[in-house]
Amino acid sequence: MSEHLPQAVVALDVGGTAVKSLVVDRDGVLHRASTPTRASDGPEQSFAVVLQAVEAALAAVPPTHTAVGVGLAVPGTVDENRGVCVHSENLGWTDLPVRDLVAARTGLPVGFGHDVRAGGLAEWRLGAGRGAEDLAYLSVGTGIAAALVLGGRPVVAGGYVGEVGHGGTTDGDPCACGGRGCPETFASAAAIGRRYTRLTGTPVDGARGVLDRTLQGDRTAELVWAEAVDGLGVLVSDIVRVTGASRVVVGGGLVHAGDALLDPLREHVRRRLTVHRLPEIVPAVLGGTAGAWGSVLLGWRAAGRGDAATVERYAELHRARVTS
Amino acid sequence: MSEHLPQAVVALDVGGTAVKSLVVDRDGVLHRASTPTRASDGPEQSFAVVLQAVEAALAAVPPTHTAVGVGLAVPGTVDENRGVCVHSENLGWTDLPVRDLVAARTGLPVGFGHDVRAGGLAEWRLGAGRGAEDLAYLSVGTGIAAALVLGGRPVVAGGYVGEVGHGGTTDGDPCACGGRGCPETFASAAAIGRRYTRLTGTPVDGARGVLDRTLQGDRTAELVWAEAVDGLGVLVSDIVRVTGASRVVVGGGLVHAGDALLDPLREHVRRRLTVHRLPEIVPAVLGGTAGAWGSVLLGWRAAGRGDAATVERYAELHRARVTS
Repeated sequence: MSEHLPQAVVALDVGGTAVKSLVVDRDGVLHRASTPTRASDGPEQSFAVVLQAVEAALAAVPPTHTAVGVGLAVPGTVDENRGVCVHSENLGWTDLPVRDLVAARTGLPVGFGHDVRAGGLAEWRLGAGRGAEDLAYLSVGTGIAAALVLGGRPVVAGGYVGEVGHGGTTDGDPCACGGRGCPETFASAAAIGRRYTRLTGTPVDGARGVLDRTLQGDRTAELVWAEAVDGLGVLVSDIVRVTGASRVVVGGGLVHAGDALLDPLREHVRRRLTVHRLPEIVPAVLGGTAGAWGSVLLGWRAAGRGDAATVERYAELHRARVTS
Repeated sequence: MSEHLPQAVVALDVGGTAVKSLVVDRDGVLHRASTPTRASDGPEQSFAVVLQAVEAALAAVPPTHTAVGVGLAVPGTVDENRGVCVHSENLGWTDLPVRDLVAARTGLPVGFGHDVRAGGLAEWRLGAGRGAEDLAYLSVGTGIAAALVLGGRPVVAGGYVGEVGHGGTTDGDPCACGGRGCPETFASAAAIGRRYTRLTGTPVDGARGVLDRTLQGDRTAELVWAEAVDGLGVLVSDIVRVTGASRVVVGGGLVHAGDALLDPLREHVRRRLTVHRLPEIVPAVLGGTAGAWGSVLLGWRAAGRGDAATVERYAELHRARVTS
């Protein structure tokens, strides 16, 4: 009987503070929800929250539909190929076989991935990365990380690809990772606000507040903003020098700054490349839902139904939303 | 008749100064040759030299064998997927459909590739990269460039992958590419000798000569060597931060320095990585023949005979040579 009902997928984007869930069918969203992750209560608790969110989403599948798969993305070091969360600082998980655990609990096929790579997957298939064979997705929010698609295939590298928010230098401010001068200490959306406050003693509404002050001629705000954009220019040019990516999609909270970020970023990158292919640098279009839409794609694929027609329908859906 | 003869492949590694050719069958090398590239005589001349070297190699196939394919690797921007040399500064070629031209001339299937990526392919299949799923090959010779294998697949990116010898900075010595402070201005084997001579006025026998002087306590030599190794440490750590590669094979002329290069390089990389997977950093084992052996593999593959057994036989051959 249920085989003749329209199919649905439940998809979760697990963050350090909230679990966002979507229930979708081929034509779009049937249900949305968000619940606190309660990461500070420890790994057992945060995993219980995730399982509960999966079950709540399954319970929200309308009786007109049948659930055929689950998609799930989490932050940290994630090996998509093995379905294992190797380590997640945010969630407190280590070597957790998430895919198998969720599959055992739900009896459904589970697509499990990394939050930033899920966001990159969604931008690549549905958003600003469509059509690119060699793509980098750079997420600049609380943290900084990249996802790569090379030769039309997402890169995993055991879960270690794209950790560009850390390392590279040995001088500068100490970073939570144990390093010094990491891009996350001065170029993430969170760091921009924090640095301004440390330099001036003035509280500010994050990167947005710093950007507003640059428009008012605040020299410290200009300095903090310029150093962040310069750091991101180094990152993007290094990603292009190494990978040859022809398009870079910039996502995460900082991209809301729009051309105030992208115009100087393009100029910085242009100055740092010579024999290379100058990449298109474009803003992400899926915003805060990129990770959840990536999970949707992982869920359909796990269900054996990640076909081009579904992707095309979702892409149209997003185009309609973006252009309207 | 000829179908029953043992099969042979001819393979060329075209450099700026010499064209090296190999004729091989499944069991090893039947013939080797080297001829000047005559690049300074212009693009028509250098292409004529390449065609002539292919024909000479085909003429060297013993009558006991039948040639089934050609492999060819050149420096520059090479799009393996289209079989086109997009641009080669060394050879003067631009948008040259090398694969089709050589196939038309010889009537044989042609595998066409990039010299450093051919070297990386050979190290991956036959040498120090064997067994790695996520590998970077960093060639440090006259120039600096990298080849990537990610998820068990060589990356091409339209021919633009791995141009890490140029760009990234905007300060420093002018580079032939039009940039400033590029790694090739201070970290290539050629640059190390050049910089020492510029700083001291003393001619020196390349990087080897500078290394010898560091062992004699020459402070300028120590400085030049240390800055080069530091620059290579930045490159390797950036490649790992971006790609997540678990093994880095260092090839090109500079690797002859051995542990004097690799020990401090490992230490530099270790200091620049934090949340990342610390890569194995190992020396290439195929030496100056890596590019030609990569061409051999491209030739067999073009002939539809790039099977695992052939690769395994060649790998054993190289292991025997390396360990004997």
